[in-house]
Amino acid sequence: MSIKPMIWDDSVLRMLDQRVLPAKETWLELKTSDEVVNAIKTMAVRGAPAIGVAAAYGMALAAKNGEGREDAGARLTASRPTAVNLFWAIDRIKSLPTWNFDAVLSEARAIEEEDLAMNHAIGRNGADLISEGWNILTVCNTGSLATAGHGTAFGVIHTAHDDGKRIHVYSCETRPRQQGLRLTAWELLREGIPFHSIADGAAASMMRAGKIDCVIAGADRIAANGDSANKIGTYSLAVLAKHHGIPFFIAAPSSTFDLRLASGDLIPIEDRDAAELTHIEGVRVAPEGTQVFNPAFDVTPGDLIDAIITENGVYHRPYAF
Amino acid sequence: MSIKPMIWDDSVLRMLDQRVLPAKETWLELKTSDEVVNAIKTMAVRGAPAIGVAAAYGMALAAKNGEGREDAGARLTASRPTAVNLFWAIDRIKSLPTWNFDAVLSEARAIEEEDLAMNHAIGRNGADLISEGWNILTVCNTGSLATAGHGTAFGVIHTAHDDGKRIHVYSCETRPRQQGLRLTAWELLREGIPFHSIADGAAASMMRAGKIDCVIAGADRIAANGDSANKIGTYSLAVLAKHHGIPFFIAAPSSTFDLRLASGDLIPIEDRDAAELTHIEGVRVAPEGTQVFNPAFDVTPGDLIDAIITENGVYHRPYAF
Repeated sequence: MSIKPMIWDDSVLRMLDQRVLPAKETWLELKTSDEVVNAIKTMAVRGAPAIGVAAAYGMALAAKNGEGREDAGARLTASRPTAVNLFWAIDRIKSLPTWNFDAVLSEARAIEEEDLAMNHAIGRNGADLISEGWNILTVCNTGSLATAGHGTAFGVIHTAHDDGKRIHVYSCETRPRQQGLRLTAWELLREGIPFHSIADGAAASMMRAGKIDCVIAGADRIAANGDSANKIGTYSLAVLAKHHGIPFFIAAPSSTFDLRLASGDLIPIEDRDAAELTHIEGVRVAPEGTQVFNPAFDVTPGDLIDAIITENGVYHRPYAF
Repeated sequence: MSIKPMIWDDSVLRMLDQRVLPAKETWLELKTSDEVVNAIKTMAVRGAPAIGVAAAYGMALAAKNGEGREDAGARLTASRPTAVNLFWAIDRIKSLPTWNFDAVLSEARAIEEEDLAMNHAIGRNGADLISEGWNILTVCNTGSLATAGHGTAFGVIHTAHDDGKRIHVYSCETRPRQQGLRLTAWELLREGIPFHSIADGAAASMMRAGKIDCVIAGADRIAANGDSANKIGTYSLAVLAKHHGIPFFIAAPSSTFDLRLASGDLIPIEDRDAAELTHIEGVRVAPEGTQVFNPAFDVTPGDLIDAIITENGVYHRPYAF
């Protein structure tokens, strides 16, 4: 039942290809750090904690193949710019006393196991904020696929459901890449959690109609003042939640915090390829010549976030971690 | 250059099939009122003013084919529930003194010509609200395709551009049916108006970054207090515009007003098929078993609308028409 987005298997990183879910369950077999870089860049694996784990195993493959530690670290670091868990995991591996396959693999396994444990703790801490009968709005995919398992925002939903609370989820599609419609729906179906998928633009009128009791999202990087970068559209939901008096929560492990940054204005936001919007399943839907602005993330100011749920507990405004 | 979504051609209503734009320019040849009903239901023609015009020509086909006036009117009335222009056009035809093909066709032509003239007047009235150099956010398609020509919200953009104002448009994709990404982009390219398409979820962060100077949307029905039903996601943009201090405008002809309704709470909102969200280009993207909530429209309260632009002038809060 438990979903894992990647499995270390002898000397190969087996990775569930999230680009083709839910239509196909295809497992990639990655044998070099460059293959891991490519998997992160092309989003075969995505989700801030999951790319941290993938990068750690990428370092293990680099050590195994006799690559230089700095070189492998630099290539993996350059794979995506916004999620800080990626850099955190690479730095952790790089700071090992020796550049040795067994040691690196052991640390990568530890990063994976700790992430899973953190997500269960996040779920436990967050579930106490969720009341019986609530309709919970979420965005993107923050489930097992986005982490080492259980999930962050999804982990809170997961734990509340496991606690026997009657909850119902509204899952935003999350254009352009539709992680909500494709991946979160897939996980919710597997877990047997009741839900409806909605278009991103439908969230506001559902709030106005009193159909949403809280919003919960993940994060790719959290600055020292609580400003949180997450999937494009998250900030929109935070403003809408504020307007409608609905609590807005962020759930993330401590590896997501970047306390060197005073505010979210300093978080680099990745612009992705126009084809993510103009093409679907390889078919062009926009007319030839259409220019696109396609930021992958936005930043929600801490003052719109009612609680930040971590493995260490629940933080409230004003944020000081 | 001028785009027309339908052309009466001898005894046939030729209609540009908007379901396959921009990939294909296919003209349907409609010869019965039932074919018009089907074209409206399946959204071969869409946009509140355009479906009003289509229904009027549907009545002409009914008269030509010897169908009963009440029966044809009832079938066309039942084709879609939210846009009031549809009922307005049918009622106007039904109130003709005789049920006679030449008279009905003449009235349908008048409805079409008046709509085109109203849109030019809307464009003129609205363009005065648009300043040189503005970045204008819009949603769905409100252009020539949605009307008898020139457009409503798009008509304002159109006229401002024709006036020589340096403007730039951000066009929201408008899931689920992507009228912004498919149709508005197609019209903007044809008119040579500079634009970028964006995911619906990206609007908020663009407002926060100061990249949006105003939002302008169409309407499918406007109640006596200014509450305006329009494409799902419009209300979201209105809340976001308010939060960021950005003016939010509605542009619509007087045929869109339903002054019998005291407020927008009384406007029926159409729920459409789940497949609009779960499938794209006929390909399933959501997992089997995904349930969907898919309202086609939302209602923006009048108190979030800074101006309602009509052919008769520009109205401001508090609304009294």
